[in-house]
This record gives sequence, C-alpha cells and structure tokens, in this order.
Amino acid sequence: MHALVFKGTGDAAWEDRPDPRVESSTDAVVRIDTTTICGTDLHILAGDVPEVAPGTVLGHEAVGEVVDTGSAVADFRPGDRVLVSCISGCGRCSSCRGGRYGQCTGGGGWVLGHTVDGTQAEFTRVPNADFGLHHVPEAEPAEKAVLLSDVFPTAFEVGALNGRVAPGDTVLVVGAGPIGLAVVAAVRLFSPARVIVTDRDDTRLRAARAVGADATVRAEEDPGRLVADLTDGLGADVAVEAVGTPATFELCAAVLRPGGRLANVGVHGSPASLALHELWNRNVTITTGLVDTFSTPRLLSMLASDRLPAGELVTHRFALEQMEEAYATFGDALGSEALKVVLAR
Amino acid sequence: MHALVFKGTGDAAWEDRPDPRVESSTDAVVRIDTTTICGTDLHILAGDVPEVAPGTVLGHEAVGEVVDTGSAVADFRPGDRVLVSCISGCGRCSSCRGGRYGQCTGGGGWVLGHTVDGTQAEFTRVPNADFGLHHVPEAEPAEKAVLLSDVFPTAFEVGALNGRVAPGDTVLVVGAGPIGLAVVAAVRLFSPARVIVTDRDDTRLRAARAVGADATVRAEEDPGRLVADLTDGLGADVAVEAVGTPATFELCAAVLRPGGRLANVGVHGSPASLALHELWNRNVTITTGLVDTFSTPRLLSMLASDRLPAGELVTHRFALEQMEEAYATFGDALGSEALKVVLAR
Amino acid sequence: MHALVFKGTGDAAWEDRPDPRVESSTDAVVRIDTTTICGTDLHILAGDVPEVAPGTVLGHEAVGEVVDTGSAVADFRPGDRVLVSCISGCGRCSSCRGGRYGQCTGGGGWVLGHTVDGTQAEFTRVPNADFGLHHVPEAEPAEKAVLLSDVFPTAFEVGALNGRVAPGDTVLVVGAGPIGLAVVAAVRLFSPARVIVTDRDDTRLRAARAVGADATVRAEEDPGRLVADLTDGLGADVAVEAVGTPATFELCAAVLRPGGRLANVGVHGSPASLALHELWNRNVTITTGLVDTFSTPRLLSMLASDRLPAGELVTHRFALEQMEEAYATFGDALGSEALKVVLAR
Amino acid sequence: MHALVFKGTGDAAWEDRPDPRVESSTDAVVRIDTTTICGTDLHILAGDVPEVAPGTVLGHEAVGEVVDTGSAVADFRPGDRVLVSCISGCGRCSSCRGGRYGQCTGGGGWVLGHTVDGTQAEFTRVPNADFGLHHVPEAEPAEKAVLLSDVFPTAFEVGALNGRVAPGDTVLVVGAGPIGLAVVAAVRLFSPARVIVTDRDDTRLRAARAVGADATVRAEEDPGRLVADLTDGLGADVAVEAVGTPATFELCAAVLRPGGRLANVGVHGSPASLALHELWNRNVTITTGLVDTFSTPRLLSMLASDRLPAGELVTHRFALEQMEEAYATFGDALGSEALKVVLAR
Repeated sequence: MHALVFKGTGDAAWEDRPDPRVESSTDAVVRIDTTTICGTDLHILAGDVPEVAPGTVLGHEAVGEVVDTGSAVADFRPGDRVLVSCISGCGRCSSCRGGRYGQCTGGGGWVLGHTVDGTQAEFTRVPNADFGLHHVPEAEPAEKAVLLSDVFPTAFEVGALNGRVAPGDTVLVVGAGPIGLAVVAAVRLFSPARVIVTDRDDTRLRAARAVGADATVRAEEDPGRLVADLTDGLGADVAVEAVGTPATFELCAAVLRPGGRLANVGVHGSPASLALHELWNRNVTITTGLVDTFSTPRLLSMLASDRLPAGELVTHRFALEQMEEAYATFGDALGSEALKVVLAR
Repeated sequence: MHALVFKGTGDAAWEDRPDPRVESSTDAVVRIDTTTICGTDLHILAGDVPEVAPGTVLGHEAVGEVVDTGSAVADFRPGDRVLVSCISGCGRCSSCRGGRYGQCTGGGGWVLGHTVDGTQAEFTRVPNADFGLHHVPEAEPAEKAVLLSDVFPTAFEVGALNGRVAPGDTVLVVGAGPIGLAVVAAVRLFSPARVIVTDRDDTRLRAARAVGADATVRAEEDPGRLVADLTDGLGADVAVEAVGTPATFELCAAVLRPGGRLANVGVHGSPASLALHELWNRNVTITTGLVDTFSTPRLLSMLASDRLPAGELVTHRFALEQMEEAYATFGDALGSEALKVVLAR
Repeated sequence: MHALVFKGTGDAAWEDRPDPRVESSTDAVVRIDTTTICGTDLHILAGDVPEVAPGTVLGHEAVGEVVDTGSAVADFRPGDRVLVSCISGCGRCSSCRGGRYGQCTGGGGWVLGHTVDGTQAEFTRVPNADFGLHHVPEAEPAEKAVLLSDVFPTAFEVGALNGRVAPGDTVLVVGAGPIGLAVVAAVRLFSPARVIVTDRDDTRLRAARAVGADATVRAEEDPGRLVADLTDGLGADVAVEAVGTPATFELCAAVLRPGGRLANVGVHGSPASLALHELWNRNVTITTGLVDTFSTPRLLSMLASDRLPAGELVTHRFALEQMEEAYATFGDALGSEALKVVLAR
Repeated sequence: MHALVFKGTGDAAWEDRPDPRVESSTDAVVRIDTTTICGTDLHILAGDVPEVAPGTVLGHEAVGEVVDTGSAVADFRPGDRVLVSCISGCGRCSSCRGGRYGQCTGGGGWVLGHTVDGTQAEFTRVPNADFGLHHVPEAEPAEKAVLLSDVFPTAFEVGALNGRVAPGDTVLVVGAGPIGLAVVAAVRLFSPARVIVTDRDDTRLRAARAVGADATVRAEEDPGRLVADLTDGLGADVAVEAVGTPATFELCAAVLRPGGRLANVGVHGSPASLALHELWNRNVTITTGLVDTFSTPRLLSMLASDRLPAGELVTHRFALEQMEEAYATFGDALGSEALKVVLAR
C-alpha cells in the first residue's frame, strides 16, 4: 500500500509500505476511505513531538471499513463502516475504567501516527480496536464523520465541558482554526449569551461567525478590551485557548472574570507565565487536557441529527494519493484559506 | 482606644486612636477580646499590598463582643459574642448571592485591615455586620474560635474543596505554616489515603504530623521523589500550595498525576512559570481563590463538636497591649517556632 | 385601590381595598402595571392551599414601578421599573446564603398571594424588596418579563437544572401547560437530542412544537411506548413532571432509563406510588423543588438577548379591572385554549 | 466439587456438582477460599427474585485463587489471589464505559448466583474476568477482603456517594445489618457532624456504635423525633435506607430537611408511598442504585491502610462444607446475633 511516512524533521513522503496485518488479538485492520490532516501533524513535521520516530506513518483521524480483526475483538467485524478515533484505550486500566482513555496506562491513548503507524495511508492497524473504533451509519457522509476522530470530541470535552460553559455565559475563544471553530460550535450547545472569537486572520473570523460566533475581533485589536466592553468590565466567564502559544494562554488568563474558567485546548511547546500575583485571589480555574473521546458515541448521534456543523469546517478535498499536495495546502493555511483538508479514495 | 497602626513599609505602632463608631446603618462596633496576626499582615508591612494606606489599623481576625449596631443590622445586638470574619459581603451583589463573599462587588469582601481599619485594636467597626459576624457560643474558647476568622475557612474552601479531595487520595501540602497545617486538618475531613507535607522547617513538620500528616519531607529533600515513591510513580491526586512563591507553585504542578488538581492557597507577589509543554495533555486542574467564608457557620459547628484541631495551632499568647512584641515573635517564626500568636484582653 | 381578594374556597372578587404602604424598613410598594394568573392560584381557589387565609389578595407575578421604599432598601428607588419575583428571601438565613430563597427560614420564600397580599391588584407591598425585586430595562415588554416572575425560573431551575439535562439527552416533558412549555424551552438550552412532550390537549401539543418539542404524543396514546421506540428501548435520560398528579409522576418514573433523572415540577395534592421494587436497582435520581429564583438575573439577560420564547406563551390579554373575566378564561383553559393570560393597566 | 444449589423456594442444598470450566475466552475459574452469605441470598430463597432458576449455585462474594483463564483474559493468571466482585461488566457497553458496571447491557452486571452459578462452592466460573476480579495482596486477610465483594462498595457508592455526604452533615442510617453498618463506616469517611442509626435490634445498634454511630435509637422509639431534636427541628441532611421496606423508606423521606438527600440502598419487593404533597416544594433528592463497584480498587487500598472497619462486621466463621449450618445461623440473625457469616476452606 501507500502511506505518508515521516522521514525526520521537515520531511515526509507518500511512499510504498507493506500492508498492515493483525498483530495482536485486539487489533483491527481498517481500509482508509477518508482521512484528514491535523495541526498536530504539522507539529510532528516541525520536530516538536520528538517521540515520533522517523519511519512512522502519520495521521490519527479516519473513516473506513474493517477488513480484518483479531480474535478478541468483540464489537467489530470485517465489512463494518467505522470511525477511527484518535484515542484508543486498553479499556482495563484505571484511567480507561474512568473513561479517561487519553490517559490510558495500558498501552493505549494517542498511539496512531504517534507511537505506531497511523491513518494517512491506504490501510491502518488499529490496536485495542473495541476501544478505538466506532460504528458509522452508511447515511453519514465520511467527510463529516471524520471530524469526530479528534476535532469535535476535543472541542466538546477539553473546551466546552472543561470550561463548564453554562446558559448565559460570555465565552472567549482564542484561535479560529479547525479546533477553535469546533469549540465555538461545542460551547453553543450550552447556550452562552455570547461567544467572542479572536484570531489573526479575517478569513477564519468569517468562518467563526458562520459556525455561530456572536462577535469577532482581530488578535491585534485588543480582544481583552472587547470582552470588558461586552461584560461591563467584569470579564469572561470562560476563555478557551485553541492556539498553543504563551501569548494566547496569557490573554485567556487576563480576560477572566473572578470565578472564571480557562480551558486550555492548544498544544504547547513551551511554558507560559501565570500571573499568580493577579490571579491568586480571583478564584479562577484552569484546566488542561488531551481528549479522552468518551463523548464520541454521543457526538455521533448528534451529528446524525444534524446538530453539529461538521461540514462547515471542510474547505479542501483531495484524493488519498494527493497527500503531499494536501499537506502543502494545509501547511499554508493563511494563503490557502484552508480549514480542514479531507482526503478520500 | 489603642490600635496597631500601619505607618508605611516596615513600620507599625501600637498607638492611641479615636474609638470607632457606627457610621452606616449596616455597621456594628465590636470590642475586641481576642485577635491574632496573619502572614498577610507581614506582607502588608513588607509593602507587598500597596492598596493598604498608611494610617490603617491592621488585622482581620477577632473574637469579641458587639457594643453597638446600626439600625439595619438584623441578626446582632449589643452583648452578642461574635466571630469577626476576615470577609464581609454586601449580601446583595451577584457574587454575594452565590455565596462568593470574597468577590463582593458591593463594597464588601476583604476590607478589615485592608481598606478600612481592622481588628488589631481594642475596638473595631465591622461594615455589613450581618454578613461579617457570626455568633459564637460562650462555651467556645476564643483562641480556638479566632482561627475561624480566616485560617480554617481558607484551608477548607480554597484548599480542600477546591482540590476536590476524595477518600483514598494522595495529597501533598506544600508549606506547614498555620494555613498549611489547617489545610492538613481540612483535607483529612475527606479521608485521603495519605497526606504528605513539605516545609523547610523541622518544627513545622513536627506540627504537621501532630495535626494528621502521614508523611513529611524537608523541602530540600526532593518532595516530588517521595510523592512518586508513595504512588508507584503516578503522582499526587491533589497538591495544595500554601506558601506563595513561584518555586512552591511549580513543585505542586510537577507532582500531579494525570487528572490531578492543584489548589493554590498561597498569596503570591509575582508570576510563576506554568509548564504547559508538559501539562497541556495531562488533564490537570489548577484553582486559585480568596476565601469566601461561606463555610464558616458549618465550621463553627464542627469546632463545637471538637472536629477541628484549632487549639493545636496556637503557640504563643500575649496581651493586646503587647501587640508589637507579638509581631516580633510572629515575624521571627523560624526562631520563635511560632504558629498562631494570639492576643487577648 | 382594587384587588382580587380570596373570599374562601371557590370565591374571589375584584373589590376595593386600602392602598398598601411600607410597613417594614425592607419593604417596597410597587404599582402593578402587568400581572398574570398562575395554576397555583386556581389551586388556592379550589381550597388546595389551606394556609391562604380568606381576605388575602392573590397573585405572585408582576411587572410594575416602585412607588415607595423602606429605609433599609438598598437597590431600588421610586420610579424604578421592576419585576416582582414570586420568591423573596430574607437574604441572611442559611438557605438564602446558599441561594435557596424558596426555602428561606427568615420570613421570606413564597409569601406574595400566599401569606401576605399579592400582585393581582393595583398596588402591592413587597417584603424583603432587595431580594424580591429585579430591575427590568424599559425596552423589555412587560408581558414577556412577567413570565420571569415564576414560569421561567421554575422551568429552568426545577426542570432543566434539577434534571441535569445534557447535550444529546432524550427528555420527556409531561404536561404542556405554561410551565411545561417553559420547561421545553429551558431544557433546549442544553441541546438535548430530542424533547418529547405529552399532554391530553392537542392545542397544547401544538404549542409545545412551537416552542421546540421534537415529538408530541397525546396522553392516552402511550407516551412510554414512544419514548421506548425513540431510544431503542432504553428509556429517557430525563423526565420532567409538570402536571402534579400521581399518574403523571408515575409515568415519569416508568419511562426512565437506568441512570435517568426525574425532575418533579408539578404541585401535588396527594402522594404517589413509587415503584421501588422496579427502581431500587436502576440508579435513578428523583428531585423535587420549589423555585429559588437564583437564576432570575441571568434569565433576564437571556430574555433581553431574545434567547427565551417568553412571548409565545401569552395567549390572552385583559385590563387589570377585567380580573374576574381573566380568571374565567384561564380557569377554562381547555375551552379557551389559554396558556398565559396577562393583565395590564 | 460441592456447591450450595438453589432447589426452589425455601430449599437449597450443599451437594455435588461438576467442576466449572472456562467456557468463554473471557472467563476465569477461581478456587473459592472464602465466601459469605448476603441478605439477597435469603431473598432468593424466599422466592423474591424469580429470575433465579432452580439449579443455580448461589453466592456472589468470594476471595480465592485463579486456577484457569480464557485466552482473552489479560490481567489475571492462574495462581493469582483475587477478590470476586458481585458485579462483572462486559467493559465495552456504554454503561461499562461510564463505570456503571451494575447496569451493563453487554451480558454483565450482577450475574454470579443470579443468572449463572455463583460463589458458594468450591470453585466458580467468573465471566468477564478482567472486569469481575481484583488482585488481593497476600497480606490482606480474606475475611476482611471478602467484604469488598459487595458490602463496602454498595455502602460507599449507593449510600455515601449517592447521598453526597459532606463534612458537618447530619446523617440518619435506617437499618443496622451488615450493609447498614458498612454505610455508617462509609459516610464517616466524609466527616459528618453526626451519624444516627435506627434498627429494631439492640445488638445491631451496639454494633453500629462500634463502627462509629454517634447516636442510636430503636425503630419503635420515634427516630424522626431524635433527628428533629438533634437538628433544631430542621431534619437530616442525608437519610440512607438500608432495609428495603415501604415503612423504612417512608421514614427516610419524612426526616429530610429541605434540600436533603435520600439514598436508597435496600432491596425492595413492593412499592412505597411517596408523599409528594409534602415533598414537592422541599427540594429533596432521592436516589436508588445497584452497586457498580467502580470504587473497589480504591476501597481495597483503603482496606490495606486499615481505613475500613471490615473485620468488625464478621461475627461467625464456618468451614465451606458447613454451608447449610451457616445459612441457618445467618437466617436467624436476631437469634444468633449474626452480622456477616464467613465460610472458608
């Protein structure tokens, strides 16, 4: 088969690889019909995720069809149409028993395109298949469903739930890339009074309004001032960080009202400064999190009843074998105006 | 009357002042029978709390007797024995309606010894008396009750509740001053498996064991290693910061298990570094907080049934007029081995 | 002035009464501009609420203008446009401090039209005015705002919050009177997958669909079967009882999935049977509640941003002096197709 | 081997049966070293649990040694010392993924001694072994550990956690059999102000005081009055039903303060009356539940650090082959003063 192989910092290639096979009794092999590229893949290419070994096939999001299963796989059979989740837990460790699959201590967690070969390929082997796959109805378009591999569970769990968004809240979302946009949609499920979005890019701010932002502001135009103006100076109930830089995190901390919550979603490569001299007495709550995907089944049923704007996030479509071109398009998101770039057979 | 007047950085004096009088219909005037000194008072003297104006009487903890009340005070009458809380809310703003008196936007919050004259005096005026006083039974020793002005509510609300301590948890408490020791007692109300305490001072570590610490470790002897050893390398469920320095905060963040909670109790004068590159995917929760004192009535009833080790924290006793000597003793806590220093008529 | 005076079971009359005056320093007198009739008023007339003494002016919902205030009222002045809440807490008892005004032990709670004269009058005296009134912007139509005296806070707090409605849930609402319809709107703030409504009356079921019900079923057509069909036999996540009879309560208990929640909103006059032999091992949660109105300020701001369908519930309008005719219309709700009947100057 | 076989209502016998064998890849066979009898076993014998087929081996609690495992069992090997849990989930259904193993829809839940042969035998087959067994350290006495098969998880999850017991609460426990006594111990983990226990039997009330009850009262001596006296007429924060009759449930509902919680633990054979005409406006919460045993690992570690009074509940010891005598003793609990009756090889 062909797959996108990480060759080392700055280098990946769509090249020939042996077909994956069932190696453990809990494995499934999935034929990839649809996959996509995540900002994290760009971080890997940039050398920011050193535990990814050269030679690894990248990608952790896909919709496809099961072609083989190990003997201990209980819930999936060849022919099943499935969503491949970015997270697959062992199901038995104490983290998995609490639904915290992202923190699996039994060999699961985020493994695809990270510690084992991933989904940007014609086929992929999914370890712990019972906990890493989900059935997808035939009626569901794959390019919508694939956004539930990572984007929407992350936005819902790490953004909206961690931020404890409540009806009437004022929410600031910092960053309007695919994850930030999904956060806008996810927080709206809880009927905030207003969702304010900031980003450096006007195209993305337009997309934010399309998925439900009530107000947008360019990053250089003082988002904190807008939050203050809209809340009589009180500050935001919730700020969601969806970029992954010290400056954006510090902005989130600065706009919170007393008692506010900061939900960090972004992937960070360096420490940030935490203004404890200002925050120690302001009763704020800060959360971090890798997605656990415990919400995926529920999100799939919400997608089926058309309650998630998944389709709105897809801007570009490619064939699988155009993987390198798709990376170029996604990597130049500002130039290409790309949000999610979907590849299909 | 006499009172301890803040004269400016590094300077305070026990000197003559006019007796306080009822100024607003919601005021009460209280004759101070017992008061104490807080670490925050030392911060004020050190110039770290610039909003305290020279000329202010210090102190925000006391037990005394009501001697006069404004016309709108409903629940207190002259002759009532009362606890003066460090926090007094207006009772009507949206913060107060949610029990968040420390975040009062109606003129309350922490005002005594901060924005108005405080309790290190023979008499004090308590604004918003219905929300700043609590009845104290005659049978309750004042030197125990005075620890419920600030120390125990802070430990319970900002430490134990914010940290969501649960039965079987491993808890690290960083700092074994009066607040840290009260945190040890407060977290034990939730039956953790073990409470580990670290401090630089052996005397304080002994005191920690006396109030219920299961293990103690000197700050320079790698508390993180001890936590790891006792948790099979997993980390602490909860870490409570009760010092107020970047290093102690960063220690707390470093010892958390995935999913752990960091409850900051310490008063900070500078930012800390938050290792987001390590924490972004570890699902941690960090809280800060000024005490609200919503728990004070419940803590008073627990004190009455002898379920709080308040008496254990009092090491030195002075007469009110020995205020300056008491400050010297408390200010040299390492030399004097002082925890709480109580002053009484 | 004129007011609707309860004369005893089955009898009330719009008759002359002395104008109310400030009696306590915490009172306000409000000129009633808009009021409405609650199902509870019919219960009083039917003799079901024996603590209401003959001679009492009925009514606990209104929008009006403050005309006088006692000396201790802090937040309201003559000329202020206000919402009169059905609940007014003392603000100081332990219930009020926790925001549980409906359970006030200091003389507040539900008093208007219950233990003191109410709002179906040209003027009313509001005890504990700071905790029983809310400012209403001039731009807000009174006939919408008046639904926040009781209907929407009850639906939101006792229905949606007690039922812990979550995104993707299946919710059954039993009863499509004004409260049940407001429950439909309130639970939708949390993005359930589907809201099913049952009632005996087709007009009300149409109204339910208009405020957002996804499916409706007549009471005699086996609502439990519909819930089962829509949930693969599993049952409802949440059932909200908004009628107040044993049969409707028992229906709610019967349709719950394991782990489901039953939020009782209805006013009951007799016990119900609780099928513990079927429920003991099904992990259900049942809640009851009188509204506390802690959510009223937030709901007012949501009304202002047009996020509550308050106007949709008003079907009939009368002048204040048509009070008896309004009662006749509201009392014959099936015949008149009345939901909320609003009276204005 | 020998096993206690249910022969039909009123009849069971210790008789010869074929040794159990691994039937499914997820099974384990365990040699029983220690087992015990549950009140539920008496219910089965009395014919109250009709789904138990004649011919079934009874019992759902044991400590033993694994002697064989199916190919898909990952966490256990022959020779392992194990606790057999009363609940074994499939681990994959949506209930199990949420830790709600007792509500497993994949064939698990309470199966041992219920729908398949149980633990009152020399050997037993445990389905879904990875989710039905727990490792037990050699140092832990089996007769203590066996109380974590059912008694302590039930008391902790269904009693203390469902009741949301908090520091300073007043808790009434109705019923001082083994489960009620374990509830006393479990609620004390949250530091209530007082735990009041009622039962018809003085011996059991003595046992209640031994495990930490602060006050006890015979059932016929008006427990509600005692609760009222100890709470200034307010009522209990939490009432735990641990008997399973309408009268005891109704007592629990009657003693709650406004806002109180009723946690039902008892197994009920008939409906109870729920006084909604009194409760509708009192903001009570009622929960039911079959244990899920998600807390078992944590309880095992608390047992190891001696924080659970498991040993105090064991009053009688028998050899396995004395099973019928043990039943007679346990069945005459009032006469024999039996609490837990333990049988060992």
